[in-house]
Amino acid sequence: MQPLSVTLGDRSYPIHIGAGLLDDAKIYARHVASRNVAVVTNNVVAPLYLERVQRALAQAGARAVPVLVEDGERAKAWETLDRVIDALLAAHCGRDSVIVALGGGVIGDLAGFAAAVYQRGVAFIQVPTTLLAQVDSSVGGKTAINHARGKNMVGAFHQPLAVIADVATLDSLPDRELRAGLAEVIKHGCILDLQFVAWLEANMDKLLARDRAALGHAVRRSCELKAQVVATDERESGLRAILNFGHTFGHAIEAGVGYGEWLHGEAVATGMVMAAELSVRSGTLRREDADRVAALIARAGLPVRGPALPIERYLELMRVDKKASGGRVRYVLLEGLGRAALRSDLDPGLIRESIAAAAP
Amino acid sequence: MQPLSVTLGDRSYPIHIGAGLLDDAKIYARHVASRNVAVVTNNVVAPLYLERVQRALAQAGARAVPVLVEDGERAKAWETLDRVIDALLAAHCGRDSVIVALGGGVIGDLAGFAAAVYQRGVAFIQVPTTLLAQVDSSVGGKTAINHARGKNMVGAFHQPLAVIADVATLDSLPDRELRAGLAEVIKHGCILDLQFVAWLEANMDKLLARDRAALGHAVRRSCELKAQVVATDERESGLRAILNFGHTFGHAIEAGVGYGEWLHGEAVATGMVMAAELSVRSGTLRREDADRVAALIARAGLPVRGPALPIERYLELMRVDKKASGGRVRYVLLEGLGRAALRSDLDPGLIRESIAAAAP
Repeated sequence: MQPLSVTLGDRSYPIHIGAGLLDDAKIYARHVASRNVAVVTNNVVAPLYLERVQRALAQAGARAVPVLVEDGERAKAWETLDRVIDALLAAHCGRDSVIVALGGGVIGDLAGFAAAVYQRGVAFIQVPTTLLAQVDSSVGGKTAINHARGKNMVGAFHQPLAVIADVATLDSLPDRELRAGLAEVIKHGCILDLQFVAWLEANMDKLLARDRAALGHAVRRSCELKAQVVATDERESGLRAILNFGHTFGHAIEAGVGYGEWLHGEAVATGMVMAAELSVRSGTLRREDADRVAALIARAGLPVRGPALPIERYLELMRVDKKASGGRVRYVLLEGLGRAALRSDLDPGLIRESIAAAAP
Repeated sequence: MQPLSVTLGDRSYPIHIGAGLLDDAKIYARHVASRNVAVVTNNVVAPLYLERVQRALAQAGARAVPVLVEDGERAKAWETLDRVIDALLAAHCGRDSVIVALGGGVIGDLAGFAAAVYQRGVAFIQVPTTLLAQVDSSVGGKTAINHARGKNMVGAFHQPLAVIADVATLDSLPDRELRAGLAEVIKHGCILDLQFVAWLEANMDKLLARDRAALGHAVRRSCELKAQVVATDERESGLRAILNFGHTFGHAIEAGVGYGEWLHGEAVATGMVMAAELSVRSGTLRREDADRVAALIARAGLPVRGPALPIERYLELMRVDKKASGGRVRYVLLEGLGRAALRSDLDPGLIRESIAAAAP
C-alpha cells in the first residue's frame, strides 16, 4: 500500500503501515545504504524483533550495531541518554549515521532525542512496535526525556526520515498497552473526525480482538489525522495543541499518581472524559456527545473515572505543566464531536466540576 | 550603528556591536517584554556584568532570574546542563521564556544548548563577553556540551533571537584570551577576505592595545564574514565547513594536550599554520602567503609551533573528530590568501610533513 506522507517541506517523510514491514529491506535501503546505523531498543523488544531488523538493515547495505537500554519510562533520563551517546561514539558513528528507534513511545522519544542532539543532529527512523507509538508518538517529531521536576521537559522537535509501523508487532503487545494505544486513536476521532468516531464505535470489538485489517485502518486513519495537524503547525504554536485533548487533565493524573502507575493512554482516556465534561459545561458540546465519548472509552476497556486525588492537587499539577503559558492553563474543548478548540479563559468553577464529575 | 543581520528566513537575527550595549534596555525590550528571562552566566562574569544586565532586563519589562554555573570548559557537561534545566523549572520558566547567555563561548554553548532542549526549545539571546565569543561562537547557532569521548559531541543548531556584542566588556578580558580570540579573527580573513588580512596586519598593535575602534571593526568584519557563510549553509552541509580552517589540526592539539591546556584559539592558531603548510605542499598557496599567515599569528602573540605530540597521535585524533565523514578527514586549504576550499583526498605524506613543519 502507498505510504502516507507527513508534509513538512524538506523535512517531509513517509509513514509505511502494514503487516510484516519491520524487516522489509527495501524500505530501509534508501535511507541507510552504506551508512552506520545504531538500533536503539530495549531488553523486552530486542528478543522479539532485533535480529530481524538487523538482518534487514544488513541487506539494505548498512553497518548496524544494537544499543540496548532498560525497559520502561525510567529510560527517558539523562543517564540513559548519555549511555546511548556513548555507544554511538564507541561505534564511530559520524554525522551521516542513522539511528533506528525500535520499540514503543519511550524508545522513540529517547532515541529520537539522542538523534536530535548527537553531533548536533543525525537522521533517525521510527520503527514503533506499540499501538500508542504507531498511532501517535512516532509521528510528528516530538522527542524528549524526563526531568525530576516533570515529564518531557528536555527534548527537541526532530522529524524522522521515515516511520515504519508494522501492525504485526501488535500481536506481542499486552492487552493493557493495546487499550492504552486506543485512547489516542479515540482522541484523534474526537477532535478531528466524527466519521472515524462512528467507525470506532462499529469496530471496537475487532480492534480489541486484534483484527489486522481493523488495526491497520485505525493506525492509518490516526496517522493521517495527526499528520495533517503536524503539517499545519509543526512546532505547536497553535493548532497542534488540539492534539492535547484530554492531556491537560491526563498529565495531572499521571503526575499525581506517580508516573507508571497509570499508563499514559489510561490517564488520557480519563482526561478526555473530564475534557468532554468541561466542554458540556462550557456550552460547546451536547451531553449526548460527551456520553458517546465516555462510552467509547469504556468499551475500549479504559478508565472513565479518575484516581483518588484531591481536586486542588489536579489544579496545582495542571498549572506547572509545560503546556501552561505564562501560568495560564490551556484547555482543549470539543465543539461538537469531531471538532476541537483551544480555550484558556475558563471559569475555574467549571474545571473543578468537570474533574469532580469523573471522580472515583 | 545599524546592527548586522544573519539572514536565515524566519530565523534571521541582528548582531548589535558597540561599546556599552550590554545594558541597553531598548535592545532587549522587543525580545523580552513581559516574559520570564533566565540569565545564565558564571562566577567570573557575574560580579562584572550580571547586575547591569539584570537591571536592563527589568527596565525592558522582563522578570529575570540569574542561573550561575562554574567557570571554564568543564561547565559544558550533562551535570551543569541538568542544573540549568532544574533552575529554569524551579523559576517556572515556560515555553515563552528567554534565556540570556552572558559570558564567553562556554556559556554561549551551554546556555544555547539548554535553550535548544528546554521544553523542546525556547528562545535565547547571546551576550558574548569574550573576543572569541563575539567574533565566532555567538554567531551561527552552534550550541553544544562535551562528552567524555569528545568535545561538542552533544548539541544542536539553535539560532539566537539576537547577539549583543559589547566591545567594552573586552576591557576585562585577560591578555591570553584576547589573543586567543584574535585567532578566529585572523581565520576569517585568511579564508574569506584578503583585504581584511591586510587590515589586521596594519592594525594588530591597536588590537592588542585594545583600541575600541579597532576592536569594534575586527568584531564587525568577523561577524559579517561568518554571517555570510552561515546564511549560505546553516547546518554545515557544505560551505560552512571552511570555517574549520585550522580546526582539524587544532582539535587534535586540544585533545592531545588535554582540553584547557591550550586555549581553543591557541590550538586553532597553530592549526592554521599547519593548514597553510599543507596548502603550500598541495600546491594551492604560495610560500610567501603561508609566511604571511604565520607572521600575523606570531604578531598576535599566538603559538606557531605545535605541542610535543607524536605525529601518529595527531593523525589518530583527527580521524575520530566528528568532522570526519565516514572515517575520512576533511581539510580546509587556502587557495591563495582570502579563499578556502575543502579537500579530503590528500596524500597522507603531505599531512605528516605539514604537522612536522610546525613541530616544537
